[in-house]
Amino acid sequence: MPITKISVPNHLPTDKVRALADAVQDALVTICDIPPKDRFQFISRLAPDAMIIDPTFPDLSRTADASMVEIIMIGGRDAEQKSRLYQHIVSRSEAAGFVGDDIMIALIENEREDWSAGRGQSYANVS
Amino acid sequence: MPITKISVPNHLPTDKVRALADAVQDALVTICDIPPKDRFQFISRLAPDAMIIDPTFPDLSRTADASMVEIIMIGGRDAEQKSRLYQHIVSRSEAAGFVGDDIMIALIENEREDWSAGRGQSYANVS
Amino acid sequence: MPITKISVPNHLPTDKVRALADAVQDALVTICDIPPKDRFQFISRLAPDAMIIDPTFPDLSRTADASMVEIIMIGGRDAEQKSRLYQHIVSRSEAAGFVGDDIMIALIENEREDWSAGRGQSYANVS
Repeated sequence: MPITKISVPNHLPTDKVRALADAVQDALVTICDIPPKDRFQFISRLAPDAMIIDPTFPDLSRTADASMVEIIMIGGRDAEQKSRLYQHIVSRSEAAGFVGDDIMIALIENEREDWSAGRGQSYANVS
Repeated sequence: MPITKISVPNHLPTDKVRALADAVQDALVTICDIPPKDRFQFISRLAPDAMIIDPTFPDLSRTADASMVEIIMIGGRDAEQKSRLYQHIVSRSEAAGFVGDDIMIALIENEREDWSAGRGQSYANVS
Repeated sequence: MPITKISVPNHLPTDKVRALADAVQDALVTICDIPPKDRFQFISRLAPDAMIIDPTFPDLSRTADASMVEIIMIGGRDAEQKSRLYQHIVSRSEAAGFVGDDIMIALIENEREDWSAGRGQSYANVS
């Protein structure tokens, strides 16, 4: 039960935004063994003055399409698996027309007991 | 000093969104001993293509009203108390006309020192 | 690689919102030794009924300009440094015309491995 929050500039075409969302989900499924149907994504389209993004930090070259991916997920992946997650997201995003430098990612981890998928049931009690 | 972030589909009537926010706050007060006035909630209304939500995972039946509740709060509750929090949110939401399967919840925990309610004062220094 | 998410009421003028974003970045640079170019900020403008904010909790006096600052950052700062971060944000915000009671702040911490600034590279592997 991860959720993904994606912040994109509002000039991005809908199908490109969808492709980024697809890339993230594909990476979660492929690298982190998330079930394919375990998909919960929320997209914010932001005006230019609502995204203040340095174009080069730390040593990159971002375009006006730069987008932020935040994933909240149950902890347990190590640094190597997280690194492969990022690579997979970017590889799939590039295939959809993104520049790899434009994809920023942050992970926030919590515990299984911190989720309810619905009906007031703790995810800790879902088999 | 929890904050609640609620993502709802933009077709939901204002009073139903408010009822969901009320349900979450009532649950925080009742189950987690949050002071009633300790209320800080932020609502995002999203277009249909900005919410990619699986309709059935893991074994539920969501409608077009499916909504996401994120709560950032000071840690310290155990799995059982979190479970009661979810049940209370959903019970109150159902009373307001929601389907229980439509209420998804995620908790993120931090520490008292991670908050300032205002004036630059650390919440760790507020009695 | 912190990111800052700022939620402001939609009546705030653009330059005042920018001043708040500047205040947060200045504080991160000055107090937390974040590189000045390490700047990634996302701003949400919310309608009045999308911000449910208690006007006085715990013992403050907020105005209609009350705004929420969330910072996701790599952990490692102690309570005293976080306290100075809040003071600096508010001091700079007041210089830009904000009332100090209107600036609410929450920190969420993760690890270096939880970030990619771009190109699919884990931030844990960036020197």
